[in-house]
Amino acid sequence: MELTRRRTMRLVPGALVSAGLAGGAVMASPWRPAFAQADPLPSWNDGAAKRSLLDFVARTTAPGGADFVAAPERIAVFDNDGTLWTEQPFYFQAAFAIDQAKAMAPQHPEWKDREPFRSVLAGDMAGLAATGEKGLLELLAVTHAGMTVEQFNRSVTDWIATARHPKFGRPYTDLIFQPMLELMALLRAHQFKTYIVSGGGIEFMRAWTEKVYGIPPEQVVGSYGVVKLERRDGQPVLVKEKAVDFIDDGPGKPVAINHFIGRRPVLAFGNSDGDLEMLQYTAAGSGPRLMGLVHHTDAGREFAYDRQSHFGKLDKALDEARQRGWTVVDMKADWNTVYPFQKK
Amino acid sequence: MELTRRRTMRLVPGALVSAGLAGGAVMASPWRPAFAQADPLPSWNDGAAKRSLLDFVARTTAPGGADFVAAPERIAVFDNDGTLWTEQPFYFQAAFAIDQAKAMAPQHPEWKDREPFRSVLAGDMAGLAATGEKGLLELLAVTHAGMTVEQFNRSVTDWIATARHPKFGRPYTDLIFQPMLELMALLRAHQFKTYIVSGGGIEFMRAWTEKVYGIPPEQVVGSYGVVKLERRDGQPVLVKEKAVDFIDDGPGKPVAINHFIGRRPVLAFGNSDGDLEMLQYTAAGSGPRLMGLVHHTDAGREFAYDRQSHFGKLDKALDEARQRGWTVVDMKADWNTVYPFQKK
Repeated sequence: MELTRRRTMRLVPGALVSAGLAGGAVMASPWRPAFAQADPLPSWNDGAAKRSLLDFVARTTAPGGADFVAAPERIAVFDNDGTLWTEQPFYFQAAFAIDQAKAMAPQHPEWKDREPFRSVLAGDMAGLAATGEKGLLELLAVTHAGMTVEQFNRSVTDWIATARHPKFGRPYTDLIFQPMLELMALLRAHQFKTYIVSGGGIEFMRAWTEKVYGIPPEQVVGSYGVVKLERRDGQPVLVKEKAVDFIDDGPGKPVAINHFIGRRPVLAFGNSDGDLEMLQYTAAGSGPRLMGLVHHTDAGREFAYDRQSHFGKLDKALDEARQRGWTVVDMKADWNTVYPFQKK
Repeated sequence: MELTRRRTMRLVPGALVSAGLAGGAVMASPWRPAFAQADPLPSWNDGAAKRSLLDFVARTTAPGGADFVAAPERIAVFDNDGTLWTEQPFYFQAAFAIDQAKAMAPQHPEWKDREPFRSVLAGDMAGLAATGEKGLLELLAVTHAGMTVEQFNRSVTDWIATARHPKFGRPYTDLIFQPMLELMALLRAHQFKTYIVSGGGIEFMRAWTEKVYGIPPEQVVGSYGVVKLERRDGQPVLVKEKAVDFIDDGPGKPVAINHFIGRRPVLAFGNSDGDLEMLQYTAAGSGPRLMGLVHHTDAGREFAYDRQSHFGKLDKALDEARQRGWTVVDMKADWNTVYPFQKK
């Protein structure tokens, strides 16, 4: 007597709802709401990518079918940077760290002569890059640690509310991909649990993913630092420390999926070589699988980059996807809309 | 337009369903199924504990009420050993490790003269205890590491199917607390997400919690070791290494809750001093809260122990619970049934 109704959608005041996605539609589903004839992926042009997605959802959720996947096993994982939102001209979390450091600079006159802060304050990105991992970790430490989890959450929320992307002049959370919102809504309407599995910081993402993607904090997997329990004013508080504990990228992604979710996904979507192991791990499971890549081919509406990019380099994974017949999304050809604000 | 229907219950072939819990009932809920008059907690005797639970669920889920908690915030966390199942005469995971070591002994003749294995094979629990943390970690290493996550899962599943508890002569998974199953079913019927937050090993629990408690792997938080991605026969596999990464006990529990869930619970249940920080952290949030302790007072039907116990010592947390008015469950007085197999 498993109920086959739609799961309650999380109703949040963000992009997902305003984009009108509450009514994803279906094909071979046991329930047929009134809007079943609507296209659940209207921002996707007809083509192999769209067809592979619709076909996968239909096959895995048709009771009695050879490819049926029981609802608890319907785990779908998505990289974030470059897969669910834009990652150029550099990761948005780096923009956050730079903006935070600039805001803190008046309290740190010594930073004028000290790297990586000298480069950050001078807007010298090449200089920042030249400080290497040591410099970047120091930048992360001062902007992401030494505060409680709640304080950090507030600093991210405040930044999201005010910061603007250099190319689009819009909040960073406007630069999410409308077709991917539609795909996630379609999956959730079919009882898939949608997860983020990203190299980005777990606390950084959790501050806004529920509002923007409809993905609650407990379904966000990312890189993380050490957190300690302390007492302040007699109350227990969780404090973010400087030490990085785990980088959720490359071979870390299958490890993190096992760690946080404990099941192998049946669907995985990425856009770079950092997602390759996650895609391979998903593919190595038994039964129906869908592995997808967003290929950034649209310099006009977004950005065009792959094998040579400093951020989101897509090289080996693109070759393997083509060789193995994974779903490769050509942004320019497959998406008639990129961002929610461009919707007609 | 949030749907206020019951959430789909995970239908699993285990105790939860056979115990007839699919129909939890409710009071001040917006939906009133046909069975709304049934007592959702039939194994709980009328008393302060039962009333506090029913009252909390009613208050936090009544739309428009002063204590209403939005569905996404309805996070309920439960310790496992001693809270959801029995933990005497020693933690069941220790019984698993001992049984595994015995089964492996023929391949390790050198263990006869080497601690901690000499004590394990001789059934000398005092000798095992005397090997201290080093001995216990070595026992864990040989029984919990050096294999893939899938292989370990199988070894746990096989053990659960055959091992018997020394006092009851039943599978360990029979020794789960019927009243707690009812409480978790009631919470889920009101859109609470129920999590385990236990000092036990995360992979050990994930092998059976979905079947036994209706708690899926992704809602199981526990202690964990290092896991690495390797390639075997050209396929990516996840291998459990010997190193312990994190102990989810005491001050670790709030850290793990933040790490895995990313929200502060509104309800927490434990039974020992190892749960105190989790209860304090839950209590320190704003809005309605429920903190509960299972007090083992029933030597006849289960075990009676608290301040002096080697396993599940309950001392400081008992004092603090009484002082702060938390819900203290007196097993003997509050539960008319302890285990599902005792149900009339």
